[in-house]
This record gives sequence, structure tokens and C-alpha cells, in this order.
Amino acid sequence: MNFKMTMVAATILSLNSMTASAGSEIETLINMLHENGMVSDEQYGRLVAELKQNQTVANEEKAEVTKQLAEATKPSDVEVKFNKGALAVNSRDGKFNLNLGGRVQADAAVYSGDPDMGNGTEIRRGRIYISGTMYHDWGYKLEYEFANTGANGKGITDAYLTYNGFDDVQVKVGNFKDPFSLEYQASSKYTLFTERSLAGAFIPGRHMGAMASTKQKHWSLAAAVFGDSVSTKGGAEDEGWGLGTRATFAPINEKGKVVHLGLGLNYRDTDDAETAQFKSQPETHIAGENIVDTSTIANVDDYLKLGVEAAASFGPLHAQAEYTTTSVSRSSGSDLDFDGWYVQTGYFITGESRKYKKGAFSGVTPKSIVGEGGIGAWELGLRYSSLDLSDSDIDGGEVDSVTLGLNWYATPSLRFSANYVDVLDVDGGANDNDEPSLYQVRSQWAF
Amino acid sequence: MNFKMTMVAATILSLNSMTASAGSEIETLINMLHENGMVSDEQYGRLVAELKQNQTVANEEKAEVTKQLAEATKPSDVEVKFNKGALAVNSRDGKFNLNLGGRVQADAAVYSGDPDMGNGTEIRRGRIYISGTMYHDWGYKLEYEFANTGANGKGITDAYLTYNGFDDVQVKVGNFKDPFSLEYQASSKYTLFTERSLAGAFIPGRHMGAMASTKQKHWSLAAAVFGDSVSTKGGAEDEGWGLGTRATFAPINEKGKVVHLGLGLNYRDTDDAETAQFKSQPETHIAGENIVDTSTIANVDDYLKLGVEAAASFGPLHAQAEYTTTSVSRSSGSDLDFDGWYVQTGYFITGESRKYKKGAFSGVTPKSIVGEGGIGAWELGLRYSSLDLSDSDIDGGEVDSVTLGLNWYATPSLRFSANYVDVLDVDGGANDNDEPSLYQVRSQWAF
Amino acid sequence: MNFKMTMVAATILSLNSMTASAGSEIETLINMLHENGMVSDEQYGRLVAELKQNQTVANEEKAEVTKQLAEATKPSDVEVKFNKGALAVNSRDGKFNLNLGGRVQADAAVYSGDPDMGNGTEIRRGRIYISGTMYHDWGYKLEYEFANTGANGKGITDAYLTYNGFDDVQVKVGNFKDPFSLEYQASSKYTLFTERSLAGAFIPGRHMGAMASTKQKHWSLAAAVFGDSVSTKGGAEDEGWGLGTRATFAPINEKGKVVHLGLGLNYRDTDDAETAQFKSQPETHIAGENIVDTSTIANVDDYLKLGVEAAASFGPLHAQAEYTTTSVSRSSGSDLDFDGWYVQTGYFITGESRKYKKGAFSGVTPKSIVGEGGIGAWELGLRYSSLDLSDSDIDGGEVDSVTLGLNWYATPSLRFSANYVDVLDVDGGANDNDEPSLYQVRSQWAF
Repeated sequence: MNFKMTMVAATILSLNSMTASAGSEIETLINMLHENGMVSDEQYGRLVAELKQNQTVANEEKAEVTKQLAEATKPSDVEVKFNKGALAVNSRDGKFNLNLGGRVQADAAVYSGDPDMGNGTEIRRGRIYISGTMYHDWGYKLEYEFANTGANGKGITDAYLTYNGFDDVQVKVGNFKDPFSLEYQASSKYTLFTERSLAGAFIPGRHMGAMASTKQKHWSLAAAVFGDSVSTKGGAEDEGWGLGTRATFAPINEKGKVVHLGLGLNYRDTDDAETAQFKSQPETHIAGENIVDTSTIANVDDYLKLGVEAAASFGPLHAQAEYTTTSVSRSSGSDLDFDGWYVQTGYFITGESRKYKKGAFSGVTPKSIVGEGGIGAWELGLRYSSLDLSDSDIDGGEVDSVTLGLNWYATPSLRFSANYVDVLDVDGGANDNDEPSLYQVRSQWAF
Repeated sequence: MNFKMTMVAATILSLNSMTASAGSEIETLINMLHENGMVSDEQYGRLVAELKQNQTVANEEKAEVTKQLAEATKPSDVEVKFNKGALAVNSRDGKFNLNLGGRVQADAAVYSGDPDMGNGTEIRRGRIYISGTMYHDWGYKLEYEFANTGANGKGITDAYLTYNGFDDVQVKVGNFKDPFSLEYQASSKYTLFTERSLAGAFIPGRHMGAMASTKQKHWSLAAAVFGDSVSTKGGAEDEGWGLGTRATFAPINEKGKVVHLGLGLNYRDTDDAETAQFKSQPETHIAGENIVDTSTIANVDDYLKLGVEAAASFGPLHAQAEYTTTSVSRSSGSDLDFDGWYVQTGYFITGESRKYKKGAFSGVTPKSIVGEGGIGAWELGLRYSSLDLSDSDIDGGEVDSVTLGLNWYATPSLRFSANYVDVLDVDGGANDNDEPSLYQVRSQWAF
Repeated sequence: MNFKMTMVAATILSLNSMTASAGSEIETLINMLHENGMVSDEQYGRLVAELKQNQTVANEEKAEVTKQLAEATKPSDVEVKFNKGALAVNSRDGKFNLNLGGRVQADAAVYSGDPDMGNGTEIRRGRIYISGTMYHDWGYKLEYEFANTGANGKGITDAYLTYNGFDDVQVKVGNFKDPFSLEYQASSKYTLFTERSLAGAFIPGRHMGAMASTKQKHWSLAAAVFGDSVSTKGGAEDEGWGLGTRATFAPINEKGKVVHLGLGLNYRDTDDAETAQFKSQPETHIAGENIVDTSTIANVDDYLKLGVEAAASFGPLHAQAEYTTTSVSRSSGSDLDFDGWYVQTGYFITGESRKYKKGAFSGVTPKSIVGEGGIGAWELGLRYSSLDLSDSDIDGGEVDSVTLGLNWYATPSLRFSANYVDVLDVDGGANDNDEPSLYQVRSQWAF
């Protein structure tokens, strides 16, 4: 709008000067007629005076017009636009910005085999957020999970403040994701399968804290100190606290060609709670049944997670793997070691590539869009996951599973997914020797 | 804005041509003077050259101005407007749209007679939603009920995705209302009385599912398959599921003149839960006391609801009636039949008519608005409702009641209602022979 | 934008008249040449005719241009802007307005001494609201508290409708704050310390009700009738109800110079509940431990609160004090009297002043902004609070504390606070003789 208005101003001004130049032949004619004696000196004087008077008036008016136009065509202050469906309002001076968006994941699942898991449906996630910029250098976000069936039920997900005024370092304060695990850093909107891998049992989640991070083209580094999760209420007991750091390195980071390596460390002191628990559903969420589960482990002082990440994307083909181990220190009883890993690969039949930015993969932009004559993007995925939650006196069980997935990205903000999960074997724990399988579908809009 | 900008461009361009035409008498004069021998050939040549030069410069400038103006006055991409108070942001290419709105219903009630119901107040509904269009053919909505006292307490109401790319058929996936019952299809913003009728005991509510529907001027048809309600968590048990269909026919559908007929079928399989319950408060909500209640019925395999609808609207007068019956199949014990019905009529003292669109009634637009010199719309309503929840071994009770209502629509987005409900008689159940009555008022803003 | 468009129209119109005036010398020249016999009568006639024709065409075109420009430059209908970060959308006709904003307060606290209070973190408040105007005279607001740890947990805060069509009186219906207490009338965004004083134990909170109020420059008056709080569900019992009134007087109310006096009365009938409870944490919130607490008092008929307020602000220095007493009437047992008070003072090191408007203090606008080369506003605060919850057979305890605070307002929508609270002594109650102290920090964005 403002650019356009400036153009209008500029062109109207050139129109003015044009008008002025169009009359110079009159002056020439008058001079000639005077030279030729066709008008008397007195008449010439009157003509020149009138000409000058008219020119003076015209010039004054033009100056006034120029001034008023400059004022009139100053750009408008605020621009409103859509970002894949999200509303983005930006002040042109870069001082303020506000985004309003959300997501809905509507799921259904059918189970077979043991343990008994109930077929059903759920809104897996239903979120609305506002985020933006205040006074140039400051950012904010508040997002709420309305779905009762989310990871932690209804509740605040992101609620933070950032300072972006330093050249390369961002500071963040509030409630947000611990910097750990490649599949956790990617939004749940963007994961290859409907649920994260079995190794997601070690995902630290969001905590209240403060973080400094830098994100470059070929590497990123984040370090944070955390209190407890936002839903924890201390009462008379001190809440837990933690430290987290993650480093990533991308020796290749070009459009459609990415190699990623990453390392994460996540320490948590349980403080007065002195408990920990690790568990996982078989890469589904609706039934709510954990296939492996350490149950509550008592006398826990602290635990340290170590995660190793590797990923690559070459054109439509991509692969990703992570190994995570967790060491639990107990005040009585021996230390415990649990671990998990997954390897996954995906392929865009329609030729798209995964997007990589600053240490994490995000969504895909279909080459053609359903609603604009296209067919969207189609992606196949395959994953092998493994999780071992048995050590020493803790018999949480060990499980391996294979997941096959199909994703259809009808538009950049829409996704339909179908997953088949086959649990190969459970070894130990409450579900020893079980081998359930399941089908799961999801309809998702997100922006 | 863009239309206006185009107009500015057009008028500036005509200004240009005007300026040009204003000078033709100079050329005539120069030619005359040359003919008359008043200027020499050499002078004439110079004058004509200067004139042509000035004209050429002027024309070039005009061409540049025309081009720049065309660019400058291209329409802006996004339009922001209000729809009765709701914010509507539309991209001009029809690709995106986002609406932000909500509603608040602040209620108070006073009770007399038995059973003992507590006088009080509540926010009956407090909702915010975002809805809109993505990439032309896709629609979405997410609405949340913040009021703790709503039908199902706090929680997601609508959370769905639609595909509108077919000519006549819309597809919907997610959580939304079952297609059943005329008074249920109308938003709670638009019901004639503060609460739906006693027969509302059979309203199926919202479920997770998929629906195809077509809505024509004179008829509509919807068919859907559903899982369970969004708040149900299956655990080890399979969730219930259902089927629903509704057909409507409007032989007359003109402005201010509507005849509507409808038929709904709603089947629900309780699956592992094997229970059902039907109940109703006496057309109030604050006290939370059910006047009739089957309590939890065990051994229920499934139940089928059948609803018959009829309504008419002629100018300010309108009437509506529904009969609903529910047949419950039990694995042990005989089948059960419950039913309910209501007849209601309303009259706009100020002469407005109810709006009818695609198989449901919606709000009214007052002829004059409070705040713009008007008095708003005033409506009287009368209803007789009946509900029978006693059959075989189930003694839920039978109840009849009369409701008298007054609505004041101060503006299209504001409504104040006063209702008097007189329960004529309860026959059977826990409240046998009770005859309570109540006054209820509501202040509502909704858009 | 509309003002600017009007300017464009005006200047283009003046451009027109300029163009016209620029040509008068041609007419003069033609007349002269005719007088001098340089052009024949016939030629003169043709020239004048052509001149008039051109002028007529020009005038007609100008009239058309004028008309089209007037149409084209009508102001756009809706204006979008930022208000400290909140989105404000206004229709230019004043008919509609919608604001979207929120707040996040991220807190951490460390405790020492008895009683045992757990160190920890929390999102103290996380809110989103929409508010606005409908059809000129009507206002609305709906705000929701997403933080689980707020005063009343998650839930609706403001949900109301206002009528602003009277000259001096506003009417409000719905759920909103009782008109009582200077520190309660100020938003939690604006309090000098992270938590209100010990005397905040008597803050009435929000209730469902209706209020009439008038707010003048030098005085304000509000009177309201209330039902119970929005989260109370009556069931078979009648909910409590209340009356509230508050009058304020500001003999001095100039920019940077304010003297405020206030008086509040708040009556509450407990109705069927017949209970009351008063309690306070030691000016902190995270641990959730009450340092004094009457526990539930039985047989309470009603209670009356009286509050006296005094405050002054002179340039960067400000002070505020309140005394509140509560008289509880019991159906069995003697009446009870509890009271509390605080005195606080603050000083803006950077020279700002507190803003005062219509009977309450609000935020501060820093003289310079971090992100625009400034350092923000820095404020020191000191408070002494006292609360006595022991009377007759109720031994809730008596407590005094001192709070020292530092606030940094980096921008008008950002605030960082650090508080040190020293509980001087607890006399009686469960924590007799305890003297805990605590450090608390907050990061807040709010708009």
C-alpha cells in the first residue's frame, strides 16, 4: 500500500511538471510577437506580467500540492497478510508484529492383538496461539492446548518472551521445549509419522526456564537452565530443575541437500520429588496404554540423557536416526541405564524435499496444491524403533516396532496421514511377549 | 480500497487528457499568425518545433504516469472487515479467509417449588473461535468452550476440516454436531428460549467423525459416521460409534415465508461401554438438577433415535414442532422406548422474520438498532414440551412443561432474554408429583 | 489513511484549478492580437470558439474528476493498528472495534526459613482476551486465564457486556471485578510488586453481576449487585450474593501530580453455603503455602468489608496505603473482625510518573525504550504489610512483612521484576513465630 501510494505521489508530481512545460511555447510566441512589433510594449508588459503571475500562482500551487501529496501518500502503518492460513499483522516500521494461528489433529485408530487397546477417536491436538514482536527486539508467544488428550492434557504449551537484539544470540525466558532430540525439535505438525518413535520416551518436554541459543547456517548451539514443568505445583517441596544443551552441525545445507549431525545433553535433578518414570505407548496415543513402563522409580537423585542425531536429505529421499540413553542415579539401589533408538526414511513420490532450518526439519511445500488444480505432495515413510526400559531391579520391558506411513499434503497447511504400526516383540514388563499392531489415521490443519 | 484506487487512477488519467486538450487553441493561433504573416517562417518553425517538443515530452510523461498509476493502484491483497462484531479477514484472491469471534451468555435464575434447586448465576457459554478458508477449497474451524458450566464443561466444541471443492457436496472431518433435530442444528445463540426443550434430552451432541452433506434451497441431506465424543478416552475399551443422517425439505422458502419438514435418524453403538443415560433439567441449566433421569442403563447394545421436524414462518409469526423417539436395545432385559416432543410459537412485535438457511433457522436482524436511534427487535415466545423417560423397568419419570419467553435483540449481536418455565407435572421418577417453576434471564453477546 | 486520501483528493482538485488559471494569458494575447488587427474577425471568432470549447471540455472533465475523486477517496472502512503490541481493529464509523491481546507472567521463587515452602517456577498468569465495541454503544470482553496456577486456576476472568450510550454512566453485566480496593482495581500487570499485599486477603474477587458506574476526572462512583463467583455451581443450594460500592475522590489530578482518596463497601451473603475463609500467602504464589489462614469458618450468615484508600504521586515519587476490615456475622458464635493494611512507596529512578485514570493507577510509559536505543524505566519499591486473621475462637494468625522491589520496564509492554519479601513475624495460627523470607523474579509481557 505505502509503496503504491508513493508511486501515485511521484506520478502526480511528474504530471505537474509536465503541465508546466506544456506552456513554454506561449512565452516564446509572445516574445516573437513583441520582437515583430505585433504587440506594443505596453501590451507586452501586460502579457508578460500576466504570464509571470500565472506561473507564480501555478508554482505556488505546485509547491503546496507537492507538500500535501508527500504528507498524503505516507505509507500506511500496518500490513495484514496470510501465512499459509495464519493471520500475520505487521507494522511497517518493524516495531510490532502479531500472528494468530492454530492446529487441529483429528485421529482415529483400530487395534488388534494384546494388550487390549480400545479402538477410538480423539482430537490429538487442538491449539491456538498468538505470537509476535514488540518494539523491534522483543518477541513473545502464548499457545494453548485445548485438546484434553494431548501429551499433558489441556494446558499451556509455549509461553515465553525472547530478546533478539543481540547479533547472533537469542535469549528466551518462560515455558518452552528443552533443546534435545531432533524429532522433538520438529513440531508435531511436521513429524514423518503420526506419533514420534519409541525412543520418544526420553523426550524431556517443556519446562520453565531461560535459554541462550545461536543458529547459523551450518551449526547451532543452545544452552538452558530449567525449573520444573509448568503444571508442577511445588507446595512444600522444592520443584525439580535441569540443564540442557544441544549442538548441531550441518556440513551440507543446500536447497534439497542436507546432512545433519547433532548431540544433546539433558540433566535433571528431581530435588524433593525423588522420582522418575519412563514409558511409551506403541507409537499411538488414542488407547493410552503403555506397552513398556518403568512405573514410578523411587529414590532418584537425578538423571542424565545423552542423545546422538544423524539425518540426511537428498532431493525427495530423506533419512534420520537417533540414539538416546538415560542414566538414572539413585540414592539407594544401583544406577540405571535405559536407552532407545530409531531409524527412519521417507520418500516424496511427488518429488518434494524436506525443509531444514537452523538445526531442525520443518514442513514441506507441495509442488502443486489441491484446490488449485494440483494433487498435493505424497510421501512414504518407514521406521524401525527400539526401546529398552529394563535394567537392574526395574523391569519396564523392551520393545521393537516397525511403522509404515503414508502422508498426503493436500496444501501447505493440510495433511492426511495413515500409519500402520507392527510391534515385533515385547520382552519383559507387564506386556511380556505381546505383539499388538494398529492402524491409525489423521486429518490435520495447521498454520 | 482497490476499487477506489482504480478510480483515482482513472480520474488522474482523464485529468491528463484534459490538460492536453486545453492547449489546442495555441496551435491554431500560431498557424493563423503564420498565415497572416505575423511570424516569420523561421519563427514559425521554431514555435512549431517547441510546441511539438513540449507535446512529445508531455505525452511521454503521460505514458509513464499511466503505467505507474496502473501499478500503483493495483488492489491491496487483504481486506479486513466486521461481520456483526466478528473480525473477518479475507484475501482478495479468495484463497484465504480467517474469522475471529465468540459469545458470552451471562445467566441468572430463581427457582420455586420442589425439587430443591439453588438460585444462582453462571456464564452459560463463553466461547472463542477461529474459522476460515485455506487454499480456496478447504475450510476449518476451532472453537473452545471456556465456561465450566457448559453442556460438557470446558472443552472443544467444533474442531473440523471441510472440503468444499465439489459442486454440491461438502465433506467434513473432525469434531462437530451430529445431523439431528431442528432445534439442535440452530446455534445456541439463536434458540427461541434460553434453553432447548425437554425433548433436547435426545440431542446426540457432537462426535468425532466424517460427514458428507448437500444443502440446496429447497432441501438438504447429510450422512455421517461417528466415533465417540471428543472427551471420551477409551483406555482398554473400544469407544462407541454411530451413524447419523438427516433430510430436510422446504416446499416454501422465500424471504419471510418458510415451510420446513425434516426427518433424522441417529444410531449409536455403545460398544465396550454398554451403557446409556437420558435425562433433562426443567429447561434451565444453573441449578444442575435433573427433573427426570433414567440414571445409567446397563447392558445397552445400541440405541436408535428417530426425529420428525415441522416448522413454518410467515412474516413475524413462526412455529416449530419436533417429535423424537429413542429405542434402546439391551443384551439382557427388554428393549426400551422413550420419547419427547415440543410445540413452540414466536411472534416479532417489531415485525422482523426468522431467517432460514439450508435446513436450519438462524438469528434475526432487527429493523432498528439500539445505539443508532432504534429500539431493536422484540419477540414473544410460547412453548409446550413433554418428555417420557419411563419404560419397562426404567422409571426415569415423565414431565410436561410450559415456557413463556421474551427476547430483546438490541442489535444483531446482542440479545436479552427473560423466560418463565412452569413444570406442569412430574409423573414417576425421583421427583414424582413435583411442580417447580422458575424465572431465568440472560444477557448475550455473540458473533 | 482516509485523512490522507482526502488530502490527495483536495490537492488533485487544486491542481485542476491551477491548470485552468495557467492559461488565461492566451485569452489576453488573442484579444490583444484582435484589437491590434493581427487576426481577422473571422479568425478571432474561430479562436475564441476553440478556446471556449476547450475550456468547456476542461470544466466538464474537471467536474467529473471532482465527483469521481470524491467517491474514490472516501476513507477505507476499517483501520488496523497496534496498541503496545495488542492488535486493535477499528471501523472508521465508530460502529465496531475489536482488540486482541494477552499477558504472560513467568515467575521463579526461592524460599528460606519456616514454614517449608518449595522453590520453583510457574506461569503465574497466561491470558488471552478479545474485547471491543459493537454498534457504537455496546462493549464486550472475554478473557481467559490459561495458567493452572492463577488465583482461581484456569478459568474465565472477564466475561461481560457494557452499555455506554448514557452520557456519564456505564452499565456492565456479566463476570467482572467487584469495585473494591485500590490495589485490586489496578490490573495485575501494573502492581508495584509481583504479588499484592497481605491485605489482599480481603480482595473480593470477580463475581457474576450488574454494575452502574460513573468516572469523572476528579471522582468516581460505582454500585453493583452480584451473584456468586463464576466457578460456583449451586446444585440444590442457593448461591451466595453480594452488594458492592466504591467512591473515589481525586482533589488533585494533573499530569504527574495526583492525590487520591477512596472508600469501598462490600457486603456478601453466604446464603446456603454458610461458610467463609480468609488466608494469605506471604506475598508470593509459587509455593502455595498460606502463612495465615482462618480455615473454613462455619455458620457464617454474611460479612461486610470496609476499605479506606489513600494515594499520591508527585513526579517520579509515589505512595499508596489501604486499610481494610472485615466483619463476619455468624448464626452461632460471636461476630468476628479481621483487618489488614499496607503502606507502599515507589520511585522511578529514570524519572517517569505513574499514570492515574478514573480512580485507579495503571502502567508506566518508559521515557526510553530498549530496542530503540533506550534503557527503559527503572523503579524501586518498598512496602510494609500487616494482616490480622485472629479473633475470638478463630486463630488464623497475625503477620507483618516488608517487601523490597525493583522493576525494569524495558518497553511499555515488557516488565522484569525482582522482589525480596521478609516476613517479620507470625503471631498465632499454624505458623506461629515463623519468619520466612523469599526472593522472587518475574518476566512479563502484557498488552
